[in-house]
Amino acid sequence: MLGDIIYKKLDELAEFSKDGEGVTRLPFTKEHKEAITWLEDLMNSANLTTKIDNIGNLIGEYKSPTKNAKTLVIGSHQDSVINGGKYDGALGIVLPIMCFKDFYETHGALNYNIKFIAFADEEGVSFQTAFLTSKAVVGSFTPDLLERVRYDGKTLKKSLENFGLNADISECKINDVDTFLELHIEQGPILDNKNLSLGIVDAIQGIERYHVEITGFAGHSGTIPMDMRRDAGVGAAFVISRITEFAENLKNIVVTVGCLELIPGAVNVIPGKSIFSIDIRAMDPLLIKTMVDKINSVLSETCEKRDLSFVLERKMKADSTICSKNVINMLEESMKSAGVPIFHMTSGAGHDAQEMATIMDAGMLFIRCKKGISHNKEESVMTEDIDVACKVLAEYFKCYK
Amino acid sequence: MLGDIIYKKLDELAEFSKDGEGVTRLPFTKEHKEAITWLEDLMNSANLTTKIDNIGNLIGEYKSPTKNAKTLVIGSHQDSVINGGKYDGALGIVLPIMCFKDFYETHGALNYNIKFIAFADEEGVSFQTAFLTSKAVVGSFTPDLLERVRYDGKTLKKSLENFGLNADISECKINDVDTFLELHIEQGPILDNKNLSLGIVDAIQGIERYHVEITGFAGHSGTIPMDMRRDAGVGAAFVISRITEFAENLKNIVVTVGCLELIPGAVNVIPGKSIFSIDIRAMDPLLIKTMVDKINSVLSETCEKRDLSFVLERKMKADSTICSKNVINMLEESMKSAGVPIFHMTSGAGHDAQEMATIMDAGMLFIRCKKGISHNKEESVMTEDIDVACKVLAEYFKCYK
Repeated sequence: MLGDIIYKKLDELAEFSKDGEGVTRLPFTKEHKEAITWLEDLMNSANLTTKIDNIGNLIGEYKSPTKNAKTLVIGSHQDSVINGGKYDGALGIVLPIMCFKDFYETHGALNYNIKFIAFADEEGVSFQTAFLTSKAVVGSFTPDLLERVRYDGKTLKKSLENFGLNADISECKINDVDTFLELHIEQGPILDNKNLSLGIVDAIQGIERYHVEITGFAGHSGTIPMDMRRDAGVGAAFVISRITEFAENLKNIVVTVGCLELIPGAVNVIPGKSIFSIDIRAMDPLLIKTMVDKINSVLSETCEKRDLSFVLERKMKADSTICSKNVINMLEESMKSAGVPIFHMTSGAGHDAQEMATIMDAGMLFIRCKKGISHNKEESVMTEDIDVACKVLAEYFKCYK
Repeated sequence: MLGDIIYKKLDELAEFSKDGEGVTRLPFTKEHKEAITWLEDLMNSANLTTKIDNIGNLIGEYKSPTKNAKTLVIGSHQDSVINGGKYDGALGIVLPIMCFKDFYETHGALNYNIKFIAFADEEGVSFQTAFLTSKAVVGSFTPDLLERVRYDGKTLKKSLENFGLNADISECKINDVDTFLELHIEQGPILDNKNLSLGIVDAIQGIERYHVEITGFAGHSGTIPMDMRRDAGVGAAFVISRITEFAENLKNIVVTVGCLELIPGAVNVIPGKSIFSIDIRAMDPLLIKTMVDKINSVLSETCEKRDLSFVLERKMKADSTICSKNVINMLEESMKSAGVPIFHMTSGAGHDAQEMATIMDAGMLFIRCKKGISHNKEESVMTEDIDVACKVLAEYFKCYK
C-alpha cells in the first residue's frame, strides 16, 4: 500500500539529521543539503522538474499540457526543531509527491500545473523567526532578516552563501499561482481524541514571539546578602512563573518560554544577565495583546522590585489566518468522495500556509498524530492515516479546478 | 612603592585569559599554562625553587638554613570564574611572593621554610567542584573526582594528562608543614563600608552545592493547552522563585542559581527538561539543612502539581571553618606592629584555607575590594591597600614562629 511506502520513505528522510535524539535538521546545514538532494531524486522519479530558489526552497514542477492552466501549489517544510520528530513538515512534502506520482501514472496528464515546495526554514530555530522561507515566496521577506545571526555566529546572508545560494531573495517570489494546500500532522491531541484520521483546518491561530533581556549585576554567590543582590536569573524566574500563571487563568491562549540563558552561567556567580524567549499564541488578537501588556507590567514590577532593568523586543508576529472557503469546499468534496468523515478544526500551530494565504487561496489538511505528541522524538503517525490522506488527496487532484 | 609594582604585575597576570569581558582563566587550559609559566619566573626572581605537583599546583619553596625549621605555607588560587576579576586568587599569590622577595633581600635568611602555592582550581567552574586542588594537597581528594566531566566533554583525568600531568594525585599531599596563611580580596562590601584596608578572618561559612534536573515532556508550543503541559522550564521558574523568597526571609544564608539550561532549548518547544545548580552558604549548618529541606519540599510540591519529576543531587559540601587562634594572634600582632587597625570578620566566600585547615593551623587576611564587587570584570583593589597588606605581611614574616 502507498501508506507503507510513504512511511518507509519518511524513515529514510529522517536519517538526514544531526546526531542525538529524534530529528534535528536545521536549514542551511549539511543535513538540509542531504535532505533536498534526496527529495530532488524523489521529485524527479515523480516526473517533476526541480529547482532550488535563492532562499533554499526546493521546488518540483509539474507542467500541464493545457494552455493557460491554473497552478496548484502544495508543500510543507523540510526543517525540524531540535530533537524533533520524523513527520512535522516532512510528511507534507513526501506524501503529496508520492501520491501525485501514483495519480499521474494511473490517470495521465492533468489540466492544471502543480508546484511542490519543500520550504527550507519554517520552524525558525536558527534565526528566531518563523515562516522565513515562505515569506520569501510570497514577497514579505524584509532585507533586515539577512542580518539575523544563528547559533554559530553566522548571519542568514552568510549561511545562504555558504549553502551555495546568492541571497537575492526578491527572485524567490512566485507569481501566477492560484491555491496553496498544506498537509501536516496535527501536532495536537484533537484528532486522536476524536478517533479521526483527518481534519480540515478552518483557521490558524496568531503568534507573537519576544526576546527578553533582564540586566542586573553579576557578583560572588557567597558574599552578597540576599537583600543586596541584583540577580537577573531570579528576575527571570519570577517573570516566567507569573506570566505562566496569568496565561493558565486567561484560557484560549498559550505562552511558552523555550529558551533561557543565564550569564555568565557559573555555579558560584550571581547571574548579571538573563536572556529568554516568549512565544504567545491565540486565535484572538485581543487576547495576545492582553498577554503582552501583562508581560510588560510583570517585567516592570519585577525589575523595579529587584533593581533590574529589561528590554522586551518583538521578534516575530503572524496574524491568525482564516483558510480559503474555496480550498475548504474542495477538501470537503474530496473527503466525501473518498468516504472519509468530514471534520473541521483550528490549528494551534503556525504553518507556512499562513504566509501563502497572503497572496492566494490557502488551506490545510491535518493528519492525526498519536496523543498529539510533536516537537519530540516520540512524534508518530499511522500508515492507515497516510493511506486515508492519499485517498483524499487523489480526489482533490481529480476535483481541483 | 611595592603597591604600584604589585598592581602592575597583577595587570600582567590578568592578560592570561580567554577572550571576552574580564578574566576567564580556567584550570588545565592554555591560559593556566601561560599563567604558571609567568608565576614560575616571578617565584624564581624571588629566590624560590619551583615545582608543579600532579594536580597542577605551582609551588615555590624557600628553604631555611636552620635545621628542623618549621614550614609556613602561603597561597591562593590562579583560576578565575568566567568573566571574573583580576584580583580574586591572583592577589593572594603575587602579593606574598613580591613581599617575600623584598623582605628577604632586606633581612636575609629566615629561620623557617616557606612554601608559596598557586592552586590550580579553587573556583570549580570546570568540574562543578570547589577547592579541587587544595583537596589534593591535604589528601582529601577522592578518585571519583577524576571522572568528572567539563564543558568540552573531557574528564578531569584526561584534562590533567593533556596538561602534561600524570594524575597520580596521592603524590600531591604535603607533609611537615605547620601553618597556612591565605591573603584574598574580601569579595564582599564590609571592609569598604567600614573604610578599612584589612580584616582578619575568624571563620569561613559552609557551602553546599546541588545539581537539579526536572523532567517533563517536550512538545509543540502552539498546540498543547496550558493545563495539559508538563513544562520543565516553568517548573524550574517556580522552584527558583520560591526558594529565593524563602532564603530572603530566612536571613544569614545565601542561595544562588548560577547555571540553568532548558532542553531542547528552542523558542517553539515546551522544555522537556531543565537543569540547574543551587549554591547554598551559611555559617550555621542547621540553616543550610533547613534550606535543603525546603528545596526538597518545593521541588516535590511543584513537580507533583505540574506532573514533573526531579533529581536533586549534592555535588559539593564544605563545612564552615573556624580559623586558627594561633594564626589570628600572629595577624593581630603584625597589624599592631604595622600600625594598622585590627578588625575581625567572617568570610562569605569559600577559600582553599578551609581545606588547608583540615591538616594544619590556617588563617586568612582579607583586603578591601571596592563596593564588594567580585566575580565581575569590575572587581578592583587600591594600591594603598596592597601597600598596607605588604607592611602587615612583612611583620608576619618577622613574628612568625
